[in-house]
Amino acid sequence: MKTKTKEKIILGIDPGSNKTGYGIIKVIGSKPQMMAIGVIDLSKFDDHYLKLKHIFDRVTGIIDEYKPDELAIEAPFYGKNVQSMLKLGRAQGAAISAALSRSLPIFEYAPRKIKMSITGQGAASKEQVAAMLENMLNFQDQGIILDATDGLAAALCHFFQSNKPSGHKTYNSWKDFMNKNPQRIK
Amino acid sequence: MKTKTKEKIILGIDPGSNKTGYGIIKVIGSKPQMMAIGVIDLSKFDDHYLKLKHIFDRVTGIIDEYKPDELAIEAPFYGKNVQSMLKLGRAQGAAISAALSRSLPIFEYAPRKIKMSITGQGAASKEQVAAMLENMLNFQDQGIILDATDGLAAALCHFFQSNKPSGHKTYNSWKDFMNKNPQRIK
Repeated sequence: MKTKTKEKIILGIDPGSNKTGYGIIKVIGSKPQMMAIGVIDLSKFDDHYLKLKHIFDRVTGIIDEYKPDELAIEAPFYGKNVQSMLKLGRAQGAAISAALSRSLPIFEYAPRKIKMSITGQGAASKEQVAAMLENMLNFQDQGIILDATDGLAAALCHFFQSNKPSGHKTYNSWKDFMNKNPQRIK
Repeated sequence: MKTKTKEKIILGIDPGSNKTGYGIIKVIGSKPQMMAIGVIDLSKFDDHYLKLKHIFDRVTGIIDEYKPDELAIEAPFYGKNVQSMLKLGRAQGAAISAALSRSLPIFEYAPRKIKMSITGQGAASKEQVAAMLENMLNFQDQGIILDATDGLAAALCHFFQSNKPSGHKTYNSWKDFMNKNPQRIK
């Protein structure tokens, strides 16, 4: 009997009130591949509400098009000042509301956590993250703006996190197993 | 020929991630009356997303039920710290997204502005605001929680603001007109 290969689609979003980056990965078995990447450009809207409406409508549209199973969101918990955090909170609120209206489970990751997960360095530059993403997801940067890769990075970070064994150990090799369990070698 | 009396329904909201107050007024001609008042209680939800989803769903439901023409929102621009502003921004973002998804125009008022508009004092207490609302909208406080009156106050404040003459003078009486325009009395 053949078992069906598990498929999961993850939407990653980096909400901002000027640019909101998004990326979508499809995980087949344990192999992630890129489905889409893009930026919702909000700089063309003067009106604050038009920006929020556009975030809400576009995120809803992306969800309806790609039908992701989960949303991963880049969520800074600190900011320059209360004003900028209120603005960011509203942008996040619009994106989160869109996902909630489609009953998507939401997972948040701090920027540092995402960078660490992709590059192994919490303080990695946007360029380093982009280069690692191209390598891991096997795509060429075709003039993609860096804000878009932040959304994709959030999606991939969530894949790594949810794929992590929790509660039980994994071993990279037999040697690794032996090193970790000397008492079990008879 | 009889002219049709102008009617306008205003929904006022005071978003918060523990309690979100709302009030609805109907303005017939220039007389406001209360249609509804209530609190969306979010303290029962442990999960932050459930809170946001509940704000979004309930505000959407209230809009569909009362069909307001405009949304007035109490929006503090300062807060204790960046964390609380991010949380508040998300709650506001969920309420605003609900209104935007129903194409409602949105108007924001700072808490001080609302208090000033209702009581004449920017530093009025919640109790003072509630008492003035009861008086102006001619209803009795039937154990209504004070958070609900904040939503109603936002709606009434918006009515006062949008009813204000802008650019042209109004006169309460002929005597008022004469006092203001002595040169036009021949």
